[in-house]
Amino acid sequence: MLRFEEAQQIVNNELEKYTIDRFPEELYEPVRYILSIGGKRLRPALVLMACSVFTEAVHNAIKPALAIEFFHNFTLLHDDIMDNSNIRRGHATVHKRWDHNTAILSGDVMSILSYKIISESDDQYLKDLLQLFNLTALQVCEGQQYDMNFESRMDVTVGEYLKMIELKTAVLIAASLKAGAISGGADMLDAELLYEFGINLGMAFQIRDDHLDVYGDPEKFGKKIGNDIITNKKTFLLIKALELSDLETKSGLKNLLENENLNPETKVREVTNIYEQLGINSISADLAQAYFDKSIQYLDRVNADADRKKALATFAETLMNRDA
Amino acid sequence: MLRFEEAQQIVNNELEKYTIDRFPEELYEPVRYILSIGGKRLRPALVLMACSVFTEAVHNAIKPALAIEFFHNFTLLHDDIMDNSNIRRGHATVHKRWDHNTAILSGDVMSILSYKIISESDDQYLKDLLQLFNLTALQVCEGQQYDMNFESRMDVTVGEYLKMIELKTAVLIAASLKAGAISGGADMLDAELLYEFGINLGMAFQIRDDHLDVYGDPEKFGKKIGNDIITNKKTFLLIKALELSDLETKSGLKNLLENENLNPETKVREVTNIYEQLGINSISADLAQAYFDKSIQYLDRVNADADRKKALATFAETLMNRDA
Repeated sequence: MLRFEEAQQIVNNELEKYTIDRFPEELYEPVRYILSIGGKRLRPALVLMACSVFTEAVHNAIKPALAIEFFHNFTLLHDDIMDNSNIRRGHATVHKRWDHNTAILSGDVMSILSYKIISESDDQYLKDLLQLFNLTALQVCEGQQYDMNFESRMDVTVGEYLKMIELKTAVLIAASLKAGAISGGADMLDAELLYEFGINLGMAFQIRDDHLDVYGDPEKFGKKIGNDIITNKKTFLLIKALELSDLETKSGLKNLLENENLNPETKVREVTNIYEQLGINSISADLAQAYFDKSIQYLDRVNADADRKKALATFAETLMNRDA
Repeated sequence: MLRFEEAQQIVNNELEKYTIDRFPEELYEPVRYILSIGGKRLRPALVLMACSVFTEAVHNAIKPALAIEFFHNFTLLHDDIMDNSNIRRGHATVHKRWDHNTAILSGDVMSILSYKIISESDDQYLKDLLQLFNLTALQVCEGQQYDMNFESRMDVTVGEYLKMIELKTAVLIAASLKAGAISGGADMLDAELLYEFGINLGMAFQIRDDHLDVYGDPEKFGKKIGNDIITNKKTFLLIKALELSDLETKSGLKNLLENENLNPETKVREVTNIYEQLGINSISADLAQAYFDKSIQYLDRVNADADRKKALATFAETLMNRDA
């Protein structure tokens, strides 16, 4: 079966071969731009890796893989407008480099391109792939809406938060694995098991992401440590801290969030101190670990030789053990 | 075959039956809203009418019809953001009633819903329908991009303008007719002839729309007469007038467009005077008529009894003869 780096290489080659011979330039240039500034190609690589559990004929999975990468980048493009983000992968976001209207319309066209590409999948799997793709796409939008709703709320529960990251992040990772399984001719049970592997891995991945924002290695971490704290992002750490705080601590935490004149470094230090008192470091690390363990249990149940599943297990471990 | 009003009634019934049982409300409420504030259901009605040329089993065409109506409303939602329009069909636009982010994300979800619905089409026609839908959707975005590009240009040619309205308006009308034909089991030649009927009818429709902005009956015309003139919209009338003007007239026309202090009524009167000198009234009426005549020639060539095509011919005439 394919190792992650091999799958990633195939995806990059296919993306390079994929030319969009359409006009006007103003519409398609931002599409080429966002694809060119990189990204780990995690989701399309997972499509190919999941396919390769069941067959050597991974070319069957290339269309769904590219479609999911296009879809993912479309959501980044529109999310960056909604979140008013200026930087993506170290480069200017599309709405900053061009403008809002360009980012809206180029995102739209990118979403349509993702459907165009998935429509070119092998006929025998088309209906199943479309059904998976349609549901997943709706869920990702729902996750983004919940995330936006949370911005103005201080009473988000852990349950609500976990549902949100499942929709916004985990389902697309899960759908990538299931699309690969479908394209590899897996039976529905194995496709579902890989989907559940993906859901749990996606949950672990996002909670670990929240964790690394505070506890990552500053030398290796690409972003500034504590950025989520500075921007008041409703992460698992913050929501759990609000849940566990007594009245006095909660009031102190809210003051830190609402004080717009606070020096960012002070804010990070003080919030981190509260996390420390509440044991948030190990609670979040443990929860990520629990989701990871559960993901591996699902992978173990997939009906294939262990050595065909090894690359996925290795990849999952790497994802969990990154310290940045 | 179905008359327009019958087809329209079926569409409205089906739209009423179509419930979206998904959450959060913040995401789906604007989708229900834009569908509920009406519109003529022109495109989905054309899908059903085209289907009924070839078969009585028009239920085969309902999914493509709804999908195209969802897609059309998605484009309106995003176009209204890009054009900064406050009113649509006499109601507040989504980004005014809610906000920009809501309009972006609800539009995204509506576009995905259109794909979800078309994916539920009859298996035997799915691949053809998807191919048609994908290409058309890209073209509609391209048309919108050209339209936006034209805003800052004074040298748009008639040829460029005609290409733009073909993409932005005509292809979706044409695709509606072709999708209906495909769903009705028409052979590819007849489906193509109906597509060309639609392209030419769509061109006639848009040029007539431009014409009515200036020469419509003020009593019956829903919008203020001359609104395109007031907003400097690059219509066929304006582009043709700039093309036909001598240097002096062109300079006068440009001054009228650039003078932001001009009373709107004066502006409309003076621009209309220039149109009068240049014969723009009859030139635009004649061009709309020429496209209409060509559309009927394509309809005549469709291999079906004349009485099965009568409703489409009648509908096309009504569309042309409206004076508002």
